[in-house]
Amino acid sequence: MFENKDQSRTGIETLGEFGLIDHLTKNFEIQHQSTVKGIGDDAAVIDSEANKKMIVSTDMLLEGVHFDLSYMPLKHLGYKAVMVNLSDIYAMNAIAKQITVSIAVSNRFPVEALEELYEGIAAACKIYNIDLIGGDTTSSTTGLLISITAIGEAKQDDLAYRDGAKENDLLVVTGDLGAAYLGLQVLEREKKVFEVNPAAQPDLENYTYLVERQLKPEARKDIVTLLNELEVKPTAMIDISDGLSSEVLHICKNSGVGCNVYEDKIPLDPQVIATCEEFNIDSTTIALNGGEDYELLFTISTEDFPKIKANPHLTVIGHITHQKEGVHLITRANTKIPIIARGWNALESESGS
Amino acid sequence: MFENKDQSRTGIETLGEFGLIDHLTKNFEIQHQSTVKGIGDDAAVIDSEANKKMIVSTDMLLEGVHFDLSYMPLKHLGYKAVMVNLSDIYAMNAIAKQITVSIAVSNRFPVEALEELYEGIAAACKIYNIDLIGGDTTSSTTGLLISITAIGEAKQDDLAYRDGAKENDLLVVTGDLGAAYLGLQVLEREKKVFEVNPAAQPDLENYTYLVERQLKPEARKDIVTLLNELEVKPTAMIDISDGLSSEVLHICKNSGVGCNVYEDKIPLDPQVIATCEEFNIDSTTIALNGGEDYELLFTISTEDFPKIKANPHLTVIGHITHQKEGVHLITRANTKIPIIARGWNALESESGS
Repeated sequence: MFENKDQSRTGIETLGEFGLIDHLTKNFEIQHQSTVKGIGDDAAVIDSEANKKMIVSTDMLLEGVHFDLSYMPLKHLGYKAVMVNLSDIYAMNAIAKQITVSIAVSNRFPVEALEELYEGIAAACKIYNIDLIGGDTTSSTTGLLISITAIGEAKQDDLAYRDGAKENDLLVVTGDLGAAYLGLQVLEREKKVFEVNPAAQPDLENYTYLVERQLKPEARKDIVTLLNELEVKPTAMIDISDGLSSEVLHICKNSGVGCNVYEDKIPLDPQVIATCEEFNIDSTTIALNGGEDYELLFTISTEDFPKIKANPHLTVIGHITHQKEGVHLITRANTKIPIIARGWNALESESGS
Repeated sequence: MFENKDQSRTGIETLGEFGLIDHLTKNFEIQHQSTVKGIGDDAAVIDSEANKKMIVSTDMLLEGVHFDLSYMPLKHLGYKAVMVNLSDIYAMNAIAKQITVSIAVSNRFPVEALEELYEGIAAACKIYNIDLIGGDTTSSTTGLLISITAIGEAKQDDLAYRDGAKENDLLVVTGDLGAAYLGLQVLEREKKVFEVNPAAQPDLENYTYLVERQLKPEARKDIVTLLNELEVKPTAMIDISDGLSSEVLHICKNSGVGCNVYEDKIPLDPQVIATCEEFNIDSTTIALNGGEDYELLFTISTEDFPKIKANPHLTVIGHITHQKEGVHLITRANTKIPIIARGWNALESESGS
């Protein structure tokens, strides 16, 4: 519905594989000295700083599975695809420096569409100070696929794994939760309205934050910088891509600990609360299972609490317990519900049992 | 036709994304000290050796575009997907150390099929001394897709780019050319026979080398080691994935030089010559444009010629000229034909013009 039908159309076959890569990447500038060689050879060359480790993560986004181009503009898609990958690097308490971007596209995408996609990638690279160092462009029999590998660096001592949470540590989350998932619900609803009545204009005024969180998420590089400035080293850290409950379970499983998460502490944007009321769904369930928030979830030693206290970006939502105590949500009514499943559907079937 | 229809079938949905990754990667062992953290966190961590650069390359293979599962066994596909990526690292005169593997699969693939794919990946990792350090598994609406990022390392002084070829340098190729492309033609022919008569058994006896080169190529790690032992540093290097003519043009364009390639020097396996006669096609055209050989093409200073002379893996096929002399094939009849196009179709239309 937001698609621009008037765009001019240049077939990708007119440029060929190498011409297409050159064309799409010609405006990317190398920003890091550590990028010795970017696009244009068999491989890229990176010079890691002395005493730093290289951090590598990879993620793939597929049309029809991870995104719907009927409401996801290509520029936003390019931006989001980079965010999804950078988020994994920041979740190691590391700084991302380079990415490779591979795309597979069917010939229904003209060069102009790919230019839009790469505009979004370029915007993300500029804002997050990332060098595009390589990639692959290939034809697809169906749809669009983006595979990105992100590379970062960190000092060994700064790295935050998933397995370092200790009993009594505090569980901290950045930003607020659930908005990206609700944004998707709003967009899906508008798509259905549009399908029934193509003349209808989407009314997104009350959902601007939700839609932005879905279409243009930001990875929390600022938190890595903030924690460094505050001299707080997380004992464990993960990014919230699949929903809070899934990520809490990952940290607890990997660290061999239990956890209590307090329902009344979970940070929610007022638009999330209002929209949950409108949709008649439970905001806690959305926060726990919504996914795609790309916030960071981490644990810190209680000694570090004074350093993070009152910081508007950070909310303490629980604490780590002994493994035998399990992983629980403590509700507003002070009942203890086990957090045992991941994903919206999984929890729904649990609550229905 | 080579597909095993009797395999037992476990739906991938029974394991879930994380369960599936765990299941497929549980037998992979970390071989390098430099792999500080492999699969199981937000990102992998690599410790690069002092004074070494990191080399990064990425490639994607799509069903229906790069491979046809009706004659490509999944184990071979896994192996080949790794080879395609390692080849790019070796083409930098570097040693590959780690890979990430992302796959997208439709639910027509049972877990057993993915196990086969990963057996091939595991075999490649073992033989080439590679650590699998990460990846992503996602569902696809159609077919199978594999995206691999390979990471290697090399001393700065050892790196061979595409842009270092100098006038009078010798052009050297490893192994022999054209077999992989012919292997594909043989397999396509057998597939057509099978479609007409499903009872027909493929007769591949006369094409064993060709089929093996197509289905199970080997990346030339041995050449990187050999050149190091011979104390030969290539002035430029590239791997032959798209055909000799395409790669010669890349080196010449990037280095700002011309080149003469001698038709009678191009190394061909006897099976390539025999099959070209049988198919009534020109073996030189196949060698120039066939692709998928994954041999290395490099230039060396004439001073290094005595060191490589008579080595059975290496063939001098031409020499670098001034840019204004252009890029030419010198035929057996001593005529000079410009090498101006890449790919089989492109050349065919050229010769027809």
